[in-house]
Amino acid sequence: MEMIASNKSFGGWHKQYRHDSAVLGCRMRFAVYLPPQAASGPVPVLYWLSGLTCSDENFMQKAGAQRVAAELGIAIVAPDTSPRGEGVADDAGYDLGQGAGFYVNASEAPWMRHYRMYDYVSQELPALVAAHFPVSDRRAIAGHSMGGHGALMCALKRPQDYVSVSAFSPIANPVNAPWGQKAFAAYLGADRAAWQAWDASVLMAAAAADAQLPARVDIGLADGFLAEQLQPEALERAAAASGYPLQLHRHDGYDHSYYFIASFIEAQLRFHAGHLFA
Amino acid sequence: MEMIASNKSFGGWHKQYRHDSAVLGCRMRFAVYLPPQAASGPVPVLYWLSGLTCSDENFMQKAGAQRVAAELGIAIVAPDTSPRGEGVADDAGYDLGQGAGFYVNASEAPWMRHYRMYDYVSQELPALVAAHFPVSDRRAIAGHSMGGHGALMCALKRPQDYVSVSAFSPIANPVNAPWGQKAFAAYLGADRAAWQAWDASVLMAAAAADAQLPARVDIGLADGFLAEQLQPEALERAAAASGYPLQLHRHDGYDHSYYFIASFIEAQLRFHAGHLFA
Repeated sequence: MEMIASNKSFGGWHKQYRHDSAVLGCRMRFAVYLPPQAASGPVPVLYWLSGLTCSDENFMQKAGAQRVAAELGIAIVAPDTSPRGEGVADDAGYDLGQGAGFYVNASEAPWMRHYRMYDYVSQELPALVAAHFPVSDRRAIAGHSMGGHGALMCALKRPQDYVSVSAFSPIANPVNAPWGQKAFAAYLGADRAAWQAWDASVLMAAAAADAQLPARVDIGLADGFLAEQLQPEALERAAAASGYPLQLHRHDGYDHSYYFIASFIEAQLRFHAGHLFA
Repeated sequence: MEMIASNKSFGGWHKQYRHDSAVLGCRMRFAVYLPPQAASGPVPVLYWLSGLTCSDENFMQKAGAQRVAAELGIAIVAPDTSPRGEGVADDAGYDLGQGAGFYVNASEAPWMRHYRMYDYVSQELPALVAAHFPVSDRRAIAGHSMGGHGALMCALKRPQDYVSVSAFSPIANPVNAPWGQKAFAAYLGADRAAWQAWDASVLMAAAAADAQLPARVDIGLADGFLAEQLQPEALERAAAASGYPLQLHRHDGYDHSYYFIASFIEAQLRFHAGHLFA
């Protein structure tokens, strides 16, 4: 693991690393924010999954999360959004291939060799982080858009690993949205039955009571992707079906940008703190 | 004036515009943040001048200023850092030409035709803003690095136009720093006597008591540019010489990045609020 950047931020440290991922079979970059409290003992950690075209940098630079994380004593880990590199399969579209891993494990060629982002963000990276940083075993997960869906999906597939989950503007029901259908067809194949295990709304509707986590979702009502790609009603229906404790907050006038995330990241971090420190 | 982006942010609005600048002779972009209070009446306004290579976007996306501006009721205007466009003189270096206007009025070819950033940020843009947005005549100015110097210089040259000034990591004494010497030689010519009128430390040392404004400067002690390019001691000596009310804050471990700015922008905004609302 090689440190490539280190910046003091709100009394803590933003750091960027490169490492060889065994799961993805390529060199990966990730970022971590360590709050001041990490200097004196283990702190809980929030994993942040970013959206299409993003890297580990967007959230760290634009969300303004460090101020609140420093106050609360929460570490934040931001992985990249796909495997990367010259030998890694790619596509000309911004919504498939590098920058668009959708946090699934691909089963189809040419993607299956490297595109195992689910295993990477839910297992390999947390193990690496636990081995190298002063973090406790209290973990939450959050994300935006593609990554908002990824966060919900990880929490639904591995509820034992997280204490809470949140999302901004998630692609709530990718099996029924153009972005999701394009990516899932490529990564998972033409058989739509195989897609179900990777869709947060499908998973939430079937979530057993003892596998449910506190969940918060924030949506902007001026988000240009809302009706076609995000479909938050699908998640609401799923929560109603299983009795999942979902808080869905709709915000008038806000769009899909980091200006929206920055406006409400404090609310999401305080939501997680209520569970990380419970 | 053409609006090219509009994002709700902390209950207010971030907006980007293009307009034809008569002073610069080219099409320019700028950004404005209007706090929620602007919906019900005029608000004071902070001008933010960015550093080398930046545009109007860096500060708006990375500093996290909107949260505090929304609380305090301060508008923020962020111009670009130079004239732009195909017909505008440029240089291969990142520290001269487009993205590096240094907020001076150039007197030398080929720069003199477009590079009049001082007149633009201190006169044309404020007049445009006053004509189109609900801002009062209470104005402050701040900036980073090249723009930190620009802010100090504007406040020293036109103290009647501002109530307070602040800077992060300013190039405090450009006539004695490599960045400043390269730019001033190009824009202002070989005669160093002509440079003096554009150097904040020179101006501050000669500032009359009735032309002094409350000034705050924040410096990171891990800033890699500190000794060679920034030289904050020059500004301290100048303040001592004229009795200028300069507060210079040194911060252990912080560097030249927006992570530093984000960590202390709240302190600078509250400093300005104390004068904008006095």
